[in-house]
Amino acid sequence: MELLDSFKWRYATKKYDPTKRVDQVFVDKIVEAARLAPTSSGLQPFEVFVITNQELKNKIVSVSHEQQIVADCSHLLVFAAWDNYTAERIDQIYALTTTEREQPADRYQAYTDRLKSMYLNRPAEKNFEHAARQAYIAFAFAIAEAASLKVDATPMEGFINEEVDKLLHLNEKGLKSVTLLPIGYRDEENDWLVDLKKVRNLKENFITEID
Amino acid sequence: MELLDSFKWRYATKKYDPTKRVDQVFVDKIVEAARLAPTSSGLQPFEVFVITNQELKNKIVSVSHEQQIVADCSHLLVFAAWDNYTAERIDQIYALTTTEREQPADRYQAYTDRLKSMYLNRPAEKNFEHAARQAYIAFAFAIAEAASLKVDATPMEGFINEEVDKLLHLNEKGLKSVTLLPIGYRDEENDWLVDLKKVRNLKENFITEID
Repeated sequence: MELLDSFKWRYATKKYDPTKRVDQVFVDKIVEAARLAPTSSGLQPFEVFVITNQELKNKIVSVSHEQQIVADCSHLLVFAAWDNYTAERIDQIYALTTTEREQPADRYQAYTDRLKSMYLNRPAEKNFEHAARQAYIAFAFAIAEAASLKVDATPMEGFINEEVDKLLHLNEKGLKSVTLLPIGYRDEENDWLVDLKKVRNLKENFITEID
Repeated sequence: MELLDSFKWRYATKKYDPTKRVDQVFVDKIVEAARLAPTSSGLQPFEVFVITNQELKNKIVSVSHEQQIVADCSHLLVFAAWDNYTAERIDQIYALTTTEREQPADRYQAYTDRLKSMYLNRPAEKNFEHAARQAYIAFAFAIAEAASLKVDATPMEGFINEEVDKLLHLNEKGLKSVTLLPIGYRDEENDWLVDLKKVRNLKENFITEID
């Protein structure tokens, strides 16, 4: 199936069948898609949490406007971005890069110096916002991969970020939650959205061609 | 080919073959992927500009740190987000939704009232930042679709947003540029990145499973 057909097929599932689990092979592919996503300067300033613990999922329901999909889904993915860019974080990624590419350790020194002079002179809030945008690319890659595997998913921003941060101890890791992605299989009979037409902005309002 | 293989295949192309054009059918699919992307409350708070005009592409090079890929690519996509949420914009999307779904015009009244009470009471900067995040989802869907079609693409943040806004007259449309996406076909012999190993953060540093 073409990817576009997967994009047409997917929808923000509103009711999961709690008896259906996503195969671990599929979960791994969805997270791998997020890991392969492109990011600014290749820094990948975020991490992904994969939650199956029911008690924890139930606690997250209570800080997600009681959205039961968080409890009923098979796996709950949490995308959490760096709270700030630091010299250590930048160096760690580029140390890995030179090792993997069998390059001299100082191969990207001038480049990382430039990154540091930019990021380390900006407020943490601005850097977090930039990191969060990168997390959205990975979030979208995970959504795309799930759709391509016919795994249902629900992109979610509607939760109390600070409370999810506390439940996952993200502050201690220098992370802040950005988005949630429950994945699983739809409960077709009880999902109010499943049969409603997918509506998108008209092409003439969305696209401008400049020849 | 599996989508994951497309994600492994793709890379941020650094040199395009200016003689190779992307077929319009493929361009349409890439933009359609962006149009189909999920967004917060379905508002799709962004637009996509598709630029083939060489003079304009050359001008954008000059405000993109002289990155020649912008000139040499086949099509330059510009993702531009709403500068703010407004009642008119929210109403327009939901008017379309009720029409397309053949629902009563006031079907989502309570919902759009809630959206307005949230968005219209926040600063424009905060709303733009939220809109920009949504644009990143569509940006990522376009990158994924291009990869699935074996069309090269280069995700770009490195440009002077205000200057691109001016060149495209975005202010008048209530838009601000967020990302660029040159697409085309790689000039394999002259691209320094094409043969370098794709490096991503280690799984153990990227993924946390909570069972």
